[in-house]
Amino acid sequence: MLLSEFRLKGKEPIYKQIKNEIIRMIEEGFLIEGSKLPSTREVSELLKISRNSCIHAYELLEDKEYIQIVKGKGAFVSHKFKKKGSKWQVDWNEKISDFGKTAVDLDIVKNEAVTAKNMISFKSIAPDEKLFDLEEIKRNFLSSVSLHGEKLFNYGYAKGYKPLIDYLKIYMENKGVNLKEKDLLITNGFTEAFDIILSSLTTKGDAVICENPTHNTAIKLMKLHDLNIIGVDMEQGVINTLKLKEKLENNEVKLIYLIPSYHNPTGVVMPANMRKEIYELCNAYNVPIIEDGFNEELLYSSSHVSSIAALAGEDNSVIYAGSFSKILFPGIRVGWIVADRKLIDVLESIKRSRNIHNSVLDQAFLYEYLKNGDFEIYLKKARKYYRDKYKFAVKCAEKYLSCCKVYGDGGLHIFLELPHIYARRLLDEAMKNNVIFMPGDIFYVDDIKKDTFRLGFSRLEYNDIEKGFKIIEECIKKLQK
Amino acid sequence: MLLSEFRLKGKEPIYKQIKNEIIRMIEEGFLIEGSKLPSTREVSELLKISRNSCIHAYELLEDKEYIQIVKGKGAFVSHKFKKKGSKWQVDWNEKISDFGKTAVDLDIVKNEAVTAKNMISFKSIAPDEKLFDLEEIKRNFLSSVSLHGEKLFNYGYAKGYKPLIDYLKIYMENKGVNLKEKDLLITNGFTEAFDIILSSLTTKGDAVICENPTHNTAIKLMKLHDLNIIGVDMEQGVINTLKLKEKLENNEVKLIYLIPSYHNPTGVVMPANMRKEIYELCNAYNVPIIEDGFNEELLYSSSHVSSIAALAGEDNSVIYAGSFSKILFPGIRVGWIVADRKLIDVLESIKRSRNIHNSVLDQAFLYEYLKNGDFEIYLKKARKYYRDKYKFAVKCAEKYLSCCKVYGDGGLHIFLELPHIYARRLLDEAMKNNVIFMPGDIFYVDDIKKDTFRLGFSRLEYNDIEKGFKIIEECIKKLQK
Repeated sequence: MLLSEFRLKGKEPIYKQIKNEIIRMIEEGFLIEGSKLPSTREVSELLKISRNSCIHAYELLEDKEYIQIVKGKGAFVSHKFKKKGSKWQVDWNEKISDFGKTAVDLDIVKNEAVTAKNMISFKSIAPDEKLFDLEEIKRNFLSSVSLHGEKLFNYGYAKGYKPLIDYLKIYMENKGVNLKEKDLLITNGFTEAFDIILSSLTTKGDAVICENPTHNTAIKLMKLHDLNIIGVDMEQGVINTLKLKEKLENNEVKLIYLIPSYHNPTGVVMPANMRKEIYELCNAYNVPIIEDGFNEELLYSSSHVSSIAALAGEDNSVIYAGSFSKILFPGIRVGWIVADRKLIDVLESIKRSRNIHNSVLDQAFLYEYLKNGDFEIYLKKARKYYRDKYKFAVKCAEKYLSCCKVYGDGGLHIFLELPHIYARRLLDEAMKNNVIFMPGDIFYVDDIKKDTFRLGFSRLEYNDIEKGFKIIEECIKKLQK
Repeated sequence: MLLSEFRLKGKEPIYKQIKNEIIRMIEEGFLIEGSKLPSTREVSELLKISRNSCIHAYELLEDKEYIQIVKGKGAFVSHKFKKKGSKWQVDWNEKISDFGKTAVDLDIVKNEAVTAKNMISFKSIAPDEKLFDLEEIKRNFLSSVSLHGEKLFNYGYAKGYKPLIDYLKIYMENKGVNLKEKDLLITNGFTEAFDIILSSLTTKGDAVICENPTHNTAIKLMKLHDLNIIGVDMEQGVINTLKLKEKLENNEVKLIYLIPSYHNPTGVVMPANMRKEIYELCNAYNVPIIEDGFNEELLYSSSHVSSIAALAGEDNSVIYAGSFSKILFPGIRVGWIVADRKLIDVLESIKRSRNIHNSVLDQAFLYEYLKNGDFEIYLKKARKYYRDKYKFAVKCAEKYLSCCKVYGDGGLHIFLELPHIYARRLLDEAMKNNVIFMPGDIFYVDDIKKDTFRLGFSRLEYNDIEKGFKIIEECIKKLQK
């Protein structure tokens, strides 16, 4: 704080010493125009002097126009005292790296239309927070703090909170994943998982295969890593294996990225036999698989098939990126990676270099929540809740959007293909009528496909879903005229 | 789950249908050796059949050696059914990128000596968690959850939790920082802040100046970004400005990184006039400054001087990276960056691409804690606690380590220079006697200086500090013989 270096001398009155010191600091440029001075109370406490001396000093400073006292706000250095010499203004635009520019260009939050108030928004596929049980949350928080105390607030381990790691290992084993020679790392959700996987295995220009369309965040990260992104077209919402084989044959491919369950954006679940076929294809070309466990948790009681990581058995060829974020607590950003022990060791060091570790508190809280069985209860509720909404959305699509081709087996969204209409034209029209959705082109690696869009319904009420579909129908009709 | 795709047919007995389906899945490789089958209870619930049918099916499968039932653990696919064909083992070592390898090589947690139980450890400069008040923590958590509810658990904003941003802006203004045309971004501590700043402004090979020695994490990140690191030697624990001018003159420097308060590792506080001098020097060469606010919070009532960010006034030339981590709740990983609005906009997009945002819950909790004045109370306590420990450590250094040159003005550590002894030799000796500390070479950009070490005392009891210093003294004497 200002004046804390200052020492009072013997004779001169205290108010004068303070006044002179502040004048010196202003004139020498240690105190800049507009900067706030500490309150007289703070100064008197700091220097252990009477508050009146301070008030007097400040009054004199104001008289001499060194400072301005603004009622209720405090004392500020007067604008008379501009910093001497020319001001130093860095031209940041000119200094931003290509990476920084690309990050801004690919930031859909900044570049896509924004949801206004009162709009029916089909943009989001975030979970409906109404399903979260606050009482359970509080109980589990208190119990983790009571059990583990202050430790939860001090540094933890890059790999993650040990009890949570152990819990998730068993969780993965229960999904049929063989953990022999494998390990698990906690990450800040899927996004960080994918970013550090790419950092650990790829360098500029490497070829990576993905479904086309695919998760926009994955495309963004592959572009930010300057990779050669090879999209394989989907048919009926799943990857075309002949085309996949062709791409594997004709390129030196480093990795393949797949979302087998309730694919984003198509919503389709890849059937078991196709999972096996793709796995064997990748095996033949020795191209390891990054499996995005996206929404797998919602599968359970509907059309579940084993994850590719489970099909791999003792093989060490699949990097599984898991996250509850799409259904549970995305706000606390806890995801995980299961992969070969040697790879996890590298990922751990990268994680440490980027942000040391995930919040210990959040991990401990989540562990408590999972362990106590609250997650199982929640999942049952969430599965039914979203399945019902999905069914309703499909019914609405059949009723109002029969001109579109509809994809999706469940989950939190459906994907639609328009009859010779650009989705962005439809979006413009829909927004005029207070409906917003995600245009499909952002999910394509090549931006060519312009007639698709994604409707997320997870957080919408039934009547808004129906109303929204109706409005979209009207907009389509208008555009068809 | 296994069997959830399975539908019962009309006539055949149920146990037989289940048995045959599992045999098919095993033989076709959908179920791999060693993988766990769902419990008979789960299967009966899923298919809505009697549990006895399932038990019977499992018994028959065991008889035919398709599965093995392990008491108390469950049923597993028998080891007879190895996956067909050769196993797919990826050679990960061969696939790791140079970046990944460097991250492991520079990971001091992996490469430095590990603290064993019962050791007196001077390695850490983490805060002493005993100072954290659990009751305040619980109260603030509950109040933030009660106030904001489920929202805290859903997605938030990349820039951060708005009330916390606003709080920290005022906090920075109170430090004298002029926020005109500036903005604030929440990060996962200093580490992420520094990483995304480098991502936004530098590309491979760019020259960046730092103090030598400096924070090891910063060196690691600059190396991971493949930068040309130009260290400027310190004298008496602060940067030599003549040498700084020379480096600025002879290199095209992109950025300069400084830790002005309780420098890590030297512990020295850079005096106000030197801050101004360096600022003007950087201005002359138009080299923006990254100011590491490390431990600035501990300064307040001792020898406080304005941060460089405050000295800059309306200039947009300083990027300030703040964090409470060294004194408060490092486990929740909340730090921040104050910089020019245009730069923050880019950093926000990079932050979003890396991990979307910090935990909303942690930010809301921290905000509540700060807002309620608990932080001020804590800070007062913490400042006294660490100041007393620092004074004691200095006294011990004078008493036992008078052969060393001792640096440090306060904070959580002191830095020592040995008389012609390698610090790593001393460390080996000390560890034999159950004392561990941080060898100084890890803080140098060039690894040349081998006779320094850092002693962190924040979490040690007084008697252990004294005992540890005594042991180090004895080790030095032994090595001098």
